[in-house]
Amino acid sequence: MRELLIILLLIISSPDMNAEPASGKHPVAIAIHGGAGTIIKDNMSAEKEAAIRAKLEQALMAGHKVLINGGDALDAVTIAITTLEDSPLFNAGKGAVYTYDGSNEMDASIMDGGNLNAGAVAGVSRIKNPILAARAVMDQSPHVLLSGSGAEAFSASVGLKLVEPAYFQTEFRRQQWENSHKPATAAIQSATDKWFSTVGAVALDQGGDLAAGTSTGGMLNKRWGRVGDSPIIGAGTYADSRTCAISATGHGEFFIRAAVAHDICSRARYLKIPLTEAAEAVIHKDLVGMGASGGVITLDPSGNIGLVFNTPGMYRASIDTRGKATIKIYRP
Amino acid sequence: MRELLIILLLIISSPDMNAEPASGKHPVAIAIHGGAGTIIKDNMSAEKEAAIRAKLEQALMAGHKVLINGGDALDAVTIAITTLEDSPLFNAGKGAVYTYDGSNEMDASIMDGGNLNAGAVAGVSRIKNPILAARAVMDQSPHVLLSGSGAEAFSASVGLKLVEPAYFQTEFRRQQWENSHKPATAAIQSATDKWFSTVGAVALDQGGDLAAGTSTGGMLNKRWGRVGDSPIIGAGTYADSRTCAISATGHGEFFIRAAVAHDICSRARYLKIPLTEAAEAVIHKDLVGMGASGGVITLDPSGNIGLVFNTPGMYRASIDTRGKATIKIYRP
Repeated sequence: MRELLIILLLIISSPDMNAEPASGKHPVAIAIHGGAGTIIKDNMSAEKEAAIRAKLEQALMAGHKVLINGGDALDAVTIAITTLEDSPLFNAGKGAVYTYDGSNEMDASIMDGGNLNAGAVAGVSRIKNPILAARAVMDQSPHVLLSGSGAEAFSASVGLKLVEPAYFQTEFRRQQWENSHKPATAAIQSATDKWFSTVGAVALDQGGDLAAGTSTGGMLNKRWGRVGDSPIIGAGTYADSRTCAISATGHGEFFIRAAVAHDICSRARYLKIPLTEAAEAVIHKDLVGMGASGGVITLDPSGNIGLVFNTPGMYRASIDTRGKATIKIYRP
Repeated sequence: MRELLIILLLIISSPDMNAEPASGKHPVAIAIHGGAGTIIKDNMSAEKEAAIRAKLEQALMAGHKVLINGGDALDAVTIAITTLEDSPLFNAGKGAVYTYDGSNEMDASIMDGGNLNAGAVAGVSRIKNPILAARAVMDQSPHVLLSGSGAEAFSASVGLKLVEPAYFQTEFRRQQWENSHKPATAAIQSATDKWFSTVGAVALDQGGDLAAGTSTGGMLNKRWGRVGDSPIIGAGTYADSRTCAISATGHGEFFIRAAVAHDICSRARYLKIPLTEAAEAVIHKDLVGMGASGGVITLDPSGNIGLVFNTPGMYRASIDTRGKATIKIYRP
């Protein structure tokens, strides 16, 4: 009898190694993005495309592994975003765009749909992984949003890794910034301005909880302590396990004014329409009407995934509730 | 014929000096708040109450005068909030609460419901009127939210008045801060912590446009560059001339997580319920359920005013579309 009990306990506690969780557990799903923008196949080298696909796959699988092992959606989102921040290929963490003054100022936020807890940081220049700082603000402070050097002091006080500002700098981003300051290459600046390679993730765990997170270096040549939508709960990120997990990427000022993440969630909740339909209305109608470019990834409580954008491309990857993985860059 | 035309033009362009605008113009309305919290008659001197009522009346009348003269809701909101910022009686501009480190860090935001334009500043310590900085960010920058010293540099560049940090300091707030650092008076700290004397205004102009704005010194003893809900579009402030103008005051972290201003607006818009009913659901049900204190002032496109709070009191004043003025402090 005791042996039977131990075997039963082992079965209950053993991690699920398949995408299909055991009966009684909620099917899991995850989606990530590496930014939307003027991403056109003609402008992309085969090597860069392969590198981006490989990194998206790595982040996706890291998050999915957390979920199939019974971990929290919040942890899946955190590890997926950390992976993308650590890569110089995306405008978040290492590889962030340069500000007008030639520094890197990063923003990030995370939200737990189970209890509407949230954390965010804005304008940080020394925290290796801004998404971990956002998570620490949520878990270990009474606040939701910390900014600038104060956010860095808090992060240091809870043991997060701080680095020299030079850690974030890459030759690609430095060139982009230098070119943008040459009048003769205004056309290049214009093209790069429309490229928002913010990163983000949404996940649904076996407990049925949703989480969302977003991390970015913001907009090339931003000035005056500009804060975009990524650290704004309701604009760049929102999660509520009853309805939605959303992470956005795009022209942040418009995403704040339209409260994009919360508006998509509200339409699904109050109009009782599918979350993807709500996302399509906001991204393709409202934002296009305002002249704003960008996109969102969305996940509903049943695990339905939305990858919606009004730009030529969006780096995106997902694994649905049946375990089907997709990685895409361009518009279909 | 030419004389008749001139007379007609004079009639059309003459300012309306009554609360009831001429036929064809939209009836105007305005509401302001000076914060919600543990405001109890027994703890208030007759002199302080009279001073607060007089200042609320002054701000209210200044805003209303703009509206009846045919000015924009945005200008009415701006002048009402500027008046309250200039008074040491409220936690905004002069008289802001102290941070943990003994400084004053202010936040403000403003939104134009006619075009969803918005501007905000966070963590500023030298701009005499933070609401004017928020307005300048909206009108004169490509951004929505600027923070810290960058926001101050921008404000200086557009000619706004900067002052020494000492300008904002008052003896009352210094005492409050000092007392909060004495262990023996933890009870006092607890009481003052529940007092959110953020200021805000909502207005409806003769063109039928709505606007909203909010300004604050934030939370006593805030640290690490903490940013509350006041400068967050969708949390502390939202305006959309189709549905709502909202300004909030309360425990900012909860107001961000619940996206209070945008959620109230969304419920009215998508559930097609009165805006005040939406505000009551969010303030009395959702926020109470989260353990959060505070309130909102709301104004709908027809000029219906809501003054909704779950605290013992809220400094509030309004003039409705029929010209009826009210100034109140305690719960009815």
